[in-house]
Amino acid sequence: MRRVYMDNTASTPLLPEVLDAMLPFLKDTYGNPQSIHDWGDPARDAIEDARNKVASLIGGRPEEIIFTSSGTEANNMAIKGLAQAQQSKGRHVVISAIEHFSVLHSARTLEKQGFEVTLIPVDRHALIDPADVARVLRKDTVLVSIMHANAEVGTIQPIADIAKAVKEAGAVFHTDAVATVGTIPVDVNILGVDALSLAANPFYGPKGAAALWVRRGVRILPLMDGGVQENGRRPGTENVPAIVGMGMAAYVAESQMGPRIRQIVNLRDRLISGLLSSIDHMSLSGHPTRRLPGTASFLFEFIEGESMLMLMNQRGIAASSGSACTSRALKASHVLIAMGIPPQQAHGSLLFSLGIHNNEEDVDYVVASLPPIVHTLREMSPLYDKFMRGQRGGTEHANLQREGDGPLHESPECRGDPES
Amino acid sequence: MRRVYMDNTASTPLLPEVLDAMLPFLKDTYGNPQSIHDWGDPARDAIEDARNKVASLIGGRPEEIIFTSSGTEANNMAIKGLAQAQQSKGRHVVISAIEHFSVLHSARTLEKQGFEVTLIPVDRHALIDPADVARVLRKDTVLVSIMHANAEVGTIQPIADIAKAVKEAGAVFHTDAVATVGTIPVDVNILGVDALSLAANPFYGPKGAAALWVRRGVRILPLMDGGVQENGRRPGTENVPAIVGMGMAAYVAESQMGPRIRQIVNLRDRLISGLLSSIDHMSLSGHPTRRLPGTASFLFEFIEGESMLMLMNQRGIAASSGSACTSRALKASHVLIAMGIPPQQAHGSLLFSLGIHNNEEDVDYVVASLPPIVHTLREMSPLYDKFMRGQRGGTEHANLQREGDGPLHESPECRGDPES
Repeated sequence: MRRVYMDNTASTPLLPEVLDAMLPFLKDTYGNPQSIHDWGDPARDAIEDARNKVASLIGGRPEEIIFTSSGTEANNMAIKGLAQAQQSKGRHVVISAIEHFSVLHSARTLEKQGFEVTLIPVDRHALIDPADVARVLRKDTVLVSIMHANAEVGTIQPIADIAKAVKEAGAVFHTDAVATVGTIPVDVNILGVDALSLAANPFYGPKGAAALWVRRGVRILPLMDGGVQENGRRPGTENVPAIVGMGMAAYVAESQMGPRIRQIVNLRDRLISGLLSSIDHMSLSGHPTRRLPGTASFLFEFIEGESMLMLMNQRGIAASSGSACTSRALKASHVLIAMGIPPQQAHGSLLFSLGIHNNEEDVDYVVASLPPIVHTLREMSPLYDKFMRGQRGGTEHANLQREGDGPLHESPECRGDPES
Repeated sequence: MRRVYMDNTASTPLLPEVLDAMLPFLKDTYGNPQSIHDWGDPARDAIEDARNKVASLIGGRPEEIIFTSSGTEANNMAIKGLAQAQQSKGRHVVISAIEHFSVLHSARTLEKQGFEVTLIPVDRHALIDPADVARVLRKDTVLVSIMHANAEVGTIQPIADIAKAVKEAGAVFHTDAVATVGTIPVDVNILGVDALSLAANPFYGPKGAAALWVRRGVRILPLMDGGVQENGRRPGTENVPAIVGMGMAAYVAESQMGPRIRQIVNLRDRLISGLLSSIDHMSLSGHPTRRLPGTASFLFEFIEGESMLMLMNQRGIAASSGSACTSRALKASHVLIAMGIPPQQAHGSLLFSLGIHNNEEDVDYVVASLPPIVHTLREMSPLYDKFMRGQRGGTEHANLQREGDGPLHESPECRGDPES
């Protein structure tokens, strides 16, 4: 059976050259970068080399890069550390409704500390209107955090336009760019942001390697207390192999950006048109044009994303879903809900995230495999049955979509937190 | 030239079997443990297997293990998360004066939040008297954190005795066991603690892998907000290769504990007696018997640890020093100062941390190499010159030791945070 991995949002394989770069630091070059003997020097040099490469990828300065252990840690440090460092100016924070949980829940923690948090809505394509941000900015707004792109539906936000409004208001502007850095061109100066989170795995670097970029002069408090590493801003012995791998992955991503995007966009569009033309009662979610190169996200009516994933898995296909299980609460994805998609439809979401290892045969296999899966599930679906009987009896389809808020099925187990 | 690495406190090499265990997860088994398809399953299984192995090493339950990215992160989570979770009961926290900076500085952060922190002193061997802890416990004491052993001078604390007093007072007891787990037998039930920090690198596991063990039923707040990983207590995509490596390293450490200790203690004692018998005006620091198997720590009079490290490095020997550079403040080690060692003497500290890769030839090489280095530096030392002239003139040596507080030389650059 063919195996097709289209879940690059959840995890990607390491590039061989990334592993090759890491291996010496998993073998003989094991010194602590803080050591002042010959074992420490190559580790320290390697980290500074990686810092240069990561800075180059986003147009920042090396000394502005703070290596962290995950995008989640970078977002926690940004939201809490930036807000707390500016709180003498005010305690109002603005984020969007579709942020990653590491941003959303960090903002909730700030609320418990006395901050006020305003959520910016999105339209049905998950797009933010910069005017909506400008409208809520106040004298006491100290931090705005809007993600660069949402990995679940692919929509890319107009960050530079939002940045103008935020800078005029004098607030600090952070963007969670975990989904974009290494995937599309990202330049902190073109975006006009003050801080930016990124992670290595989305561009075929190792797990456990991420960074927060903070523009020189912008005050931030550390998330953790301890030693002097990362210029006193992120303590703990440096994870040298992971950082080195991130540097190499950044270097390759920068040099291969154009060809990668062309390859992946072609595959994504082939997948989107192939599926839309072969399956009824489904639609693309997210923005039709402002979207990540590899993100093909859909809403299937009458059936549940988890069930589709399980049958696809039986045919060797890996994808993911925002249907229910991005939190243990068994709620539909907060992103889809914020887009105004009824919970019932949100439970039928499916996300294919394509990567550099995919090819046309992968796409064609998915396009051939999915229709019978959807057919099988709809044959078992009471909602589909009701719809078909309604069709025969003349009931409007539109009524059904808003009919109920409950999930179609409760999933037996719950996993799948994309992009964290 | 022979190369002798005796800085295992700063970093250790990976065991070959640890790297072998990690490699599949750096290559083909790249799935996200949270994914519900066939790519996620082996990653999830591997993490649970590692969790079992780490739990076994410390006598805890697998579900009580929270994987983190460093000992520093585990300590931050313990100090802040345990104190904040119990603060309805009180806001008094007790730690020792010789804790790692990740504990000390986290306690300072708690102070800024309105907690009161009491520091427990140590004696000249860095030992804590359990009665000193019992004496400061109050009704509003919610957390006590005393490290199991100090990596800088090797002293092992009477944790079980301290635990009795803490439990009687009804407070939560955490121990930073980064220096002991995998090195000497550690059992959370014998120690009687409620929470314990450990890291993989001290027992030849990877950087970027550590854990906080928290006894079932003990409340703790997470340090970071985000997804559901680690049972909702530590979000962010799991660093699968690092966690797998930590599991394998724990398994090997548990099975080889006895032979490793015998080998390393023999080498350590050979080094201690070899150096003490060949160099004047030096002494062992830390406790004479209650000490880590691999820790040989000394105080050299009239000269500076950093200078010794540099000359030793020229002869291929790696060690470290608590002389000045454990913080950017250019202060002498807070551990040595807490032991009542005058700053001047503290600047002459040297730490050899031996490991399983050392042998008798290594020890003999160090014993042969160090006397001429000490001689060279003392020949250049104005303090030594003054002492020798005093000897000839009859001045007491004892007067000199307390003469000044300033460092002998300011070091040109400052690195070397052991154990973080």
